[in-house]
Amino acid sequence: MHYLAIRAALHIASVFGVYLSAAMLIPAAVDLYFGNDDWRVFAFSALFSGGLAIGLSLATQGRAPAITSRFGFLVVNLLWLTGCAVGSVPFLAASVELSLADAFFESVSGITATGATVIIGLDNMPPGILLWRSILQWIGGLGVIALGLFVLPFLNVGGVSYFRIESSDIEDRPFDRFSTFAISLVGIYAALTLACTVAYTFAGMRIFDALNHALTTIATAGFSTHDSSMGYYRDNAAILWIGTVFMFISALPFSILILFTLRGRLDALRDPQIRVFAGYVVAFVLAVAIYLRIAHERPFLDALTHSAFNMVSIISTAGYASDDYAQWGAFATAAAFVAMFLGGCSGSTTGGIKAYRFLILFKLLSNGLRRFVYPNTVVTVRYGDRPVEDDMQRAVVLYMSAFLVIWAFLFLALAATGLDFVTAVSAALTGLTNVGPGLGPIVGPAGTFAPLPDLAKWIMALAMLMGRLEILAVLVIFTPVFWER
Amino acid sequence: MHYLAIRAALHIASVFGVYLSAAMLIPAAVDLYFGNDDWRVFAFSALFSGGLAIGLSLATQGRAPAITSRFGFLVVNLLWLTGCAVGSVPFLAASVELSLADAFFESVSGITATGATVIIGLDNMPPGILLWRSILQWIGGLGVIALGLFVLPFLNVGGVSYFRIESSDIEDRPFDRFSTFAISLVGIYAALTLACTVAYTFAGMRIFDALNHALTTIATAGFSTHDSSMGYYRDNAAILWIGTVFMFISALPFSILILFTLRGRLDALRDPQIRVFAGYVVAFVLAVAIYLRIAHERPFLDALTHSAFNMVSIISTAGYASDDYAQWGAFATAAAFVAMFLGGCSGSTTGGIKAYRFLILFKLLSNGLRRFVYPNTVVTVRYGDRPVEDDMQRAVVLYMSAFLVIWAFLFLALAATGLDFVTAVSAALTGLTNVGPGLGPIVGPAGTFAPLPDLAKWIMALAMLMGRLEILAVLVIFTPVFWER
Repeated sequence: MHYLAIRAALHIASVFGVYLSAAMLIPAAVDLYFGNDDWRVFAFSALFSGGLAIGLSLATQGRAPAITSRFGFLVVNLLWLTGCAVGSVPFLAASVELSLADAFFESVSGITATGATVIIGLDNMPPGILLWRSILQWIGGLGVIALGLFVLPFLNVGGVSYFRIESSDIEDRPFDRFSTFAISLVGIYAALTLACTVAYTFAGMRIFDALNHALTTIATAGFSTHDSSMGYYRDNAAILWIGTVFMFISALPFSILILFTLRGRLDALRDPQIRVFAGYVVAFVLAVAIYLRIAHERPFLDALTHSAFNMVSIISTAGYASDDYAQWGAFATAAAFVAMFLGGCSGSTTGGIKAYRFLILFKLLSNGLRRFVYPNTVVTVRYGDRPVEDDMQRAVVLYMSAFLVIWAFLFLALAATGLDFVTAVSAALTGLTNVGPGLGPIVGPAGTFAPLPDLAKWIMALAMLMGRLEILAVLVIFTPVFWER
Repeated sequence: MHYLAIRAALHIASVFGVYLSAAMLIPAAVDLYFGNDDWRVFAFSALFSGGLAIGLSLATQGRAPAITSRFGFLVVNLLWLTGCAVGSVPFLAASVELSLADAFFESVSGITATGATVIIGLDNMPPGILLWRSILQWIGGLGVIALGLFVLPFLNVGGVSYFRIESSDIEDRPFDRFSTFAISLVGIYAALTLACTVAYTFAGMRIFDALNHALTTIATAGFSTHDSSMGYYRDNAAILWIGTVFMFISALPFSILILFTLRGRLDALRDPQIRVFAGYVVAFVLAVAIYLRIAHERPFLDALTHSAFNMVSIISTAGYASDDYAQWGAFATAAAFVAMFLGGCSGSTTGGIKAYRFLILFKLLSNGLRRFVYPNTVVTVRYGDRPVEDDMQRAVVLYMSAFLVIWAFLFLALAATGLDFVTAVSAALTGLTNVGPGLGPIVGPAGTFAPLPDLAKWIMALAMLMGRLEILAVLVIFTPVFWER
């Protein structure tokens, strides 16, 4: 690692810090408009972190380094760390009075679009702090799409290189292509958020709540303006179905939405990962709905509404709850746990293992079983029409191995802080997959992360960050070879 | 699949059934000697299942088929199914009065050397039935070593082909080699059992208990003659350490013991999987002992004795408990859960994922991380001095994928029968890894599988069988291609 690269990465991160600090002026304005004193907190935070960031960006100006993979990894890690650090400043300064661990946890949960919260009493919070939480998630969601579409494929992380948007898809000159993509991505993301806000409002949400929930729905992130999350709208089926639909859309590959917008092409919808994703969504929603109907004798439509909302919420890693599904009985709890692994599509706002990895693992498995019977046949693993190269297979396997090992370590670490089995095993998982709620009375859908010991909150912050960066992009930073000159 | 192959496979399985039925005469003799009426049960069972098996073996005599992989898989599955079926006959007929589900569960848990039990009141059972349980496990343990050394490597299952004993290691003519190996395997296995019996006796066990525990220790299987398992000897540190040492030895690759015996060669001990296995055993034993010392203020030696016994018992997939380690606090419970995944070495009596697979996954991971930094370097994955071929890597990955998918399905199925989260998730795992006890009040170390609903017992039987045959060898039977002509 060359010092030039470190300096340049710090420069990029600090410029991002300046923009994120400027974004604090939005909640400042809102609090000022509503006559809430917290506007000073946001104004002060913007000045404080903005000033630091400007200082750092000036101090790190200089020659551009060679663009290497290592530089890419460093930038990605520093960007997310900057988001966590800058994002936590208003939480530290605000009237809500959070400890350092709490403020950092909330900020990480925001910027990683996870949605686990340590703040109790959301319903009576000043609007500024609520909006800041939502904005962090919205930016985090946008960031993770950009990461999946424009960065990770070129770093060969986790097998997403396959989903690199080909230059032939759009333009000839790389820079034009990138900026066209980036602009249409932001446009689509913002348009979806607007549409979701309008829909929530029409269905009966207050407009401020609608905006906040739309920001966190499109980011499949999960912060709510109510302690009871979407359970506040438990009896409003329209709101729950709007949420379900928009979470589902946000779990699709944004590259497809981009290509559709730019070219009117729908053929990208034939991407096999969409079928796999839709398949397991339908399977989980129906299984849980039928179970609720039979075992708990809930009316089928009601069962379907809540099953759809909560299962799509978990699978898309949003993490809202319309109900305490931990009380839905053994099978529903088990389904919720398994659903935490799943995730959506590549280039979406979702975390988790994701549909294309499952598809490739399934293909590897079925080809492997075939080779037991006919050992001398060579079967090509295919993704749709295209063969899946060894590199891609290896990348998927790499991700899965890292996922399991890190999950085990996080689980052991959380248990060592004294958390019981269900809390520790589900919190480690829900953090690593950026879902939000776990299982059990503490971190389950009806609980909160507030009572966790500080050490557990730091461990959870690490889990969320690693999960957000597809684990490997963080692990690589800790290898000695990364820091070799 | 040719009908000749099916007939021949049935023939082999039924011949095994004859031998297993003959083995029932041992508990018959013991019950007769102790004046227990159950000797009639065993004599009758031997006649009944032996008669059926002889009939089937006569009916299926005929030309030998071509030896193909498919034939191998069919034989392996039928052998274990035969063991389960024949093994359950005395349980159905005995005075202990078990339902069909219970009898089958107990027999599967025996022949797969798992050690989960549905029988309550072991301490007052007639000796015959206790001995039959131990014999089933002893035979099952021997079977799984033979499977790992002589069968799976040639079927390319799970990456064990790497551990094929090379012909250069011993003789020139294949048949001589095989029979030399087989004889020395049985000799070593029996000698270890004898040594373990003697050691247990000297340490204070009654000789009948010592024999039973030795049979199930060397098989790392876990049936006990006491409801409280090895907790009956809670205060006898000598017995616990003897158990620890023999379980550890049985978790080593038997190929090494064979080569040592035949050739006096110790260089095979440099097998890297042994270092990995010993490494994680020491790590888990020490971590839990220190935790017990600090969090529960137990004297260190006592903490170490019980930590060593129970952790080695879980990791070697024996599954005895010297204490209710579910009461040892959050971290110890978490460690027990993670330990259930681990397993011992290839060609041992252990289940679980096993050390060599972890080693290869770890190598893949560290090489993958290196390639992020230097994308154009080619790094060979090595196992000790030898490169790990793509086929071997693929086999390990295949196993891991199947393991996770099947675990998830078993967990969901168990939860659907009404079992709570902790019971279902740990029972599915402990079944699939052939450990024995799970977690929670029902199936935990202080519990029993008896209260499970019948359906859950059948699901557990499937889990144990699949786990024992390294999952893939069972899955392949369910592919359409397997039954093609």
